[in-house]
Amino acid sequence: MVRVLVPLAEGFEEIEAVTIIDVLRRAGVEVVVAALGSAPVTGSHAITVVPDVLLGDVEPQQFEAVVLPGGPGVVHLQHDERIGALLTEMHQAGRWTAAICAAPTVLSQAGLLSGRRATSYPGVRDALDVGEYLETSVVVDGRVVTSRGVGTALEFALGLVSLLVSRERAEELARAMVVAQPVPVLSSV
Amino acid sequence: MVRVLVPLAEGFEEIEAVTIIDVLRRAGVEVVVAALGSAPVTGSHAITVVPDVLLGDVEPQQFEAVVLPGGPGVVHLQHDERIGALLTEMHQAGRWTAAICAAPTVLSQAGLLSGRRATSYPGVRDALDVGEYLETSVVVDGRVVTSRGVGTALEFALGLVSLLVSRERAEELARAMVVAQPVPVLSSV
Repeated sequence: MVRVLVPLAEGFEEIEAVTIIDVLRRAGVEVVVAALGSAPVTGSHAITVVPDVLLGDVEPQQFEAVVLPGGPGVVHLQHDERIGALLTEMHQAGRWTAAICAAPTVLSQAGLLSGRRATSYPGVRDALDVGEYLETSVVVDGRVVTSRGVGTALEFALGLVSLLVSRERAEELARAMVVAQPVPVLSSV
Repeated sequence: MVRVLVPLAEGFEEIEAVTIIDVLRRAGVEVVVAALGSAPVTGSHAITVVPDVLLGDVEPQQFEAVVLPGGPGVVHLQHDERIGALLTEMHQAGRWTAAICAAPTVLSQAGLLSGRRATSYPGVRDALDVGEYLETSVVVDGRVVTSRGVGTALEFALGLVSLLVSRERAEELARAMVVAQPVPVLSSV
């Protein structure tokens, strides 16, 4: 079974986090939601979520992917040395790293976007050290996946299903969830 | 300030519930999340949310609208007499009632869809006592609003903003959230 880590910091964007967790679990992926600080964790619109574990209790090597939701809480991801170390370790081990909205800044800070194609929330574009900036909903370059914001969260999550599980499963889920937009065609280049 | 009640039952669909709460709060609406039973409440994909209050502690007359998320937890909404009474009271007082996915069955059970146009998750269509069934993402008839599922949750929430606050605010939020689809044009007929 594919295992995915979703770190949750105070001020996370709720729709983004919940869409990632919900859709990946629908696809049969084991998603572990890990609080950066204490539990429970409150998002940027005062929705409080109970995490599965604390970040200190997980071993990065247990996961095929780490996926970062956006929101003002991204500042905590940027300042947490464990997140930087985790991203570097997973990237070097050939695992997937993914981020949406303002969270691609955390990948950039770890040097993962350097020379790569990526996207982000429009407002943080200038903060990225990126090879080529695209305005596409979901961008994959190697095993680094980025996306733009709440409005692209479903495409991002379905894109991750298509990369981590299969395109057929992503399309099946999109139909079951009454999603009108087609599942993005993504490949790991 | 507009006040909206979102009842939360065990097994609620997380993307739907969180999208409604998050987007309405972005629009400046006061959203009160009320647990049917005990708190916290776990959704159908094992995401646990801490509600603001218990349903027993709220007064229906304080709210301009009640919005029901879908998911397997809808069965608890159907069987809770307080929800039926609340919907009837709010509807008779000219307030808004809204539901997405499987939750329009709860409006139907309270008699609110009889002779009206409505939509729902395709799988529960036959369970509805409805005037005219539409396959549109969001349907408004009088002050009753219905929608189809996870894939239409953002349109539903933005549609509610356009009805309860203003179309301008909904369009502004859609831009800020990088939503590609246009905000649905809705009117209360």
